[in-house]
Amino acid sequence: MANSWATLGVDLHLEPAGSSGLRRGLTDALRDAVRTGRLAPGTRLPSSRSLAADLGIARNTVAEAYADLVAEGWLTARQGSGTRVGERAALPPADTAPPRRREPERPLYNLVPGTPDLAAFPRTEWLKAARRALATAPFDALGYGDPRGRPELRTALAGYLARARGVRTDPETIVITAGFSHALRLLGLVLRARGVRTVAVESYGLDVHWGLLKGAGLATRALPYDELGTDTGALGDEGAVLVTPAHQFPMGTPLHPGRRTAVVEWARRTGGLVLEDDYDGEFRYDRQPVGALQGRDPDHVVHLGTASKSLAPGLRLGWMALPPSLVEEVVAAKGPIDTCGVLDQLTLAEFLTSGAYDRHVRSSRLRYRRRRDALAAAVAGRAPEGSRIEVTGIAAGLHAVLRLPPGTEQSVIQAATWQGLALHGLAFHRHEQAVAEPLDALVVGYGTPPDSAWAGALEALCKVLP
Amino acid sequence: MANSWATLGVDLHLEPAGSSGLRRGLTDALRDAVRTGRLAPGTRLPSSRSLAADLGIARNTVAEAYADLVAEGWLTARQGSGTRVGERAALPPADTAPPRRREPERPLYNLVPGTPDLAAFPRTEWLKAARRALATAPFDALGYGDPRGRPELRTALAGYLARARGVRTDPETIVITAGFSHALRLLGLVLRARGVRTVAVESYGLDVHWGLLKGAGLATRALPYDELGTDTGALGDEGAVLVTPAHQFPMGTPLHPGRRTAVVEWARRTGGLVLEDDYDGEFRYDRQPVGALQGRDPDHVVHLGTASKSLAPGLRLGWMALPPSLVEEVVAAKGPIDTCGVLDQLTLAEFLTSGAYDRHVRSSRLRYRRRRDALAAAVAGRAPEGSRIEVTGIAAGLHAVLRLPPGTEQSVIQAATWQGLALHGLAFHRHEQAVAEPLDALVVGYGTPPDSAWAGALEALCKVLP
Repeated sequence: MANSWATLGVDLHLEPAGSSGLRRGLTDALRDAVRTGRLAPGTRLPSSRSLAADLGIARNTVAEAYADLVAEGWLTARQGSGTRVGERAALPPADTAPPRRREPERPLYNLVPGTPDLAAFPRTEWLKAARRALATAPFDALGYGDPRGRPELRTALAGYLARARGVRTDPETIVITAGFSHALRLLGLVLRARGVRTVAVESYGLDVHWGLLKGAGLATRALPYDELGTDTGALGDEGAVLVTPAHQFPMGTPLHPGRRTAVVEWARRTGGLVLEDDYDGEFRYDRQPVGALQGRDPDHVVHLGTASKSLAPGLRLGWMALPPSLVEEVVAAKGPIDTCGVLDQLTLAEFLTSGAYDRHVRSSRLRYRRRRDALAAAVAGRAPEGSRIEVTGIAAGLHAVLRLPPGTEQSVIQAATWQGLALHGLAFHRHEQAVAEPLDALVVGYGTPPDSAWAGALEALCKVLP
Repeated sequence: MANSWATLGVDLHLEPAGSSGLRRGLTDALRDAVRTGRLAPGTRLPSSRSLAADLGIARNTVAEAYADLVAEGWLTARQGSGTRVGERAALPPADTAPPRRREPERPLYNLVPGTPDLAAFPRTEWLKAARRALATAPFDALGYGDPRGRPELRTALAGYLARARGVRTDPETIVITAGFSHALRLLGLVLRARGVRTVAVESYGLDVHWGLLKGAGLATRALPYDELGTDTGALGDEGAVLVTPAHQFPMGTPLHPGRRTAVVEWARRTGGLVLEDDYDGEFRYDRQPVGALQGRDPDHVVHLGTASKSLAPGLRLGWMALPPSLVEEVVAAKGPIDTCGVLDQLTLAEFLTSGAYDRHVRSSRLRYRRRRDALAAAVAGRAPEGSRIEVTGIAAGLHAVLRLPPGTEQSVIQAATWQGLALHGLAFHRHEQAVAEPLDALVVGYGTPPDSAWAGALEALCKVLP
């Protein structure tokens, strides 16, 4: 029960909950009164004895609350002049009004690919792992540390990547990054410093990745794309190639076995570097995922992974399994202390070694598979009234491609926007020099909505399909 | 009690602790046997029925353990051929031996400045704050989010910085970074893009900071240093100046009031930018800390803070309170998704608003103050036998400067190294163009050792003093 006591000329709302609760309540109430200006700077407070009598609580409780607030800088105490509200405690606002950034309008439904279901982040399990990790971490783990990242995480990842993705690596050659983008930026800097001028990319991909390479001073050249996937036979004198072999983004096809061989042979022949973006390799529904390309040639392939799809982008954790000869250059580009928070690194290590990561991936796989099935059924169920729309790409990942009748992509996206449904068309993911048959299609991120919004999102999608 | 059951030709060490404990124990034991190669790839496992009988446990427990390991990729199960150890489960090591980085030899005692007592990191309080933060965070907080950082943390910092440091700011103009270095690198990029060529720095400082500015294409010019601190009256046409006004690093003096005014007037006159490195502003022992320089002119001063001294460098959390006109450029330099982990950001926000941060700073202040007093007493106690050595700088921060007799600095550092005591001389912190009276001195980081090593470190230090 909350009592409202008017004293000092202001209302102090206190929850009498034992003496430690009272002290905290009094401290909070006084701090709030100062912060909001209800107690003006310079105001002299009553003595602890008289306020205690007013409130009917122990004098010590008041004295301790005063001492806390003096230590925090809200009040000042000086011999002879009592306790006063600090002069700097409440400041006038800055002269210049700061620019208000307009929040992007939130769509009613979001089927933009690239984000997992954030409502399914395993909060309880993560906190458990954090507690276990912090309980055993040596104190110097909290210092500046190895620029490659915490050894616990690199060791856990080496084991996990070998087991789950067939990556042949070693904790010594893994570098932890603040997500995939950070890794790609570092590799761009290293390639540019090695004299590389052009990086081959896929005809379909992510604009932000091409932009990161450009930011490092590298041009991008698009490889042809056809029904066998990206044509790696067309590689020439580029110094590196960025590919998504397990599950082409966004087309959803795996790289054809012959073209897997071709890219590795190209790298061996020319000394080029293959950047393998394995963004969602864990999520395959019809069979075991195809092993990483890196396993074919650990000396020429950089395997890039991320926790952004399997857990959450907000963790800002990614990793590179590097060819041994590249480690020193990447570390130099990263700089001595430009690394990510150790607590999340230690927690992810514990999450991996305890099996919690596997359990989470397994339950996510089930959830996303159900959504994919529902998407395919809903789209199929529209025919014959609607036009024939195909869900393409292998049964994997967090997104699917819906092939549309020619010339309808833009109008579907427009209709979706009007309905409050955020959606990407394939054009959004097409490289400006793309060598690929023009296609009208939607890239549907079925992993993005929380469970509660999924059915509504699917219904909204079906409504706007031609 | 642990039972050791030999079966499958390998020992499975199981802790019978309820059926869920048994399943976990069996899973772990089998996984371990596969990982270490004790169960070779291709090995066929006994049926769940017969292994259950062997072990005297429920068949379901074995079947579930098998299913877990199949899902994780250690085992494979196929109709008709039973359960086998996966072919890719245990991989041969990579052909090329990775380069082994030699771990830097760990000194017996460490008095190098720049790191707080990591053993005093408030692990329990931090976990509590993490739990509260995760319990209330909306699910989309775990997404890519605002490039400036989480609004919860920017709001908490705006309040804290106003109250504790007299900073006049707003959540809209604060940008969260992965520590001070990240912030300085971003500001370097922004300044360079604005056409700045030279940044004024102090005659004493950190080589790594000067290196970051150089890396952004900026020359550094050292301002003169004398008994009033850095001479900001000597500022000319540089586009920016990097200073440590509250507690010069490493000299330990505050910037003289007249020179505080001079640097602000210079910025207003020339449009130059003042970068205020407030690395340990919370730690002052003899009086309330001097308010931030930023409060004098929020439109020309960037206030830079960090959790590296008050909590731990491993958090990789820092912040900038920016002039409003600079926000967009800094955000552009940071890039859309190059931010730090949201969990630590949310936790720090909760740590600040709950008062746990203030409590931690208060108890740290007490601990460091005791150490500083012990250092001063130990050094004074050596006289008259030893030579007169003065502990200089204000009573603040996590380090002190010990003035040595001329010409003795290098030999003291050398003697310390032989004793296993890591120590920096003032020469290490001197800019190559320093304009300052040459001084022999030690920069003693009394915050660095854990409590258990502090007395030994102090004794080792006294032994090597001339």
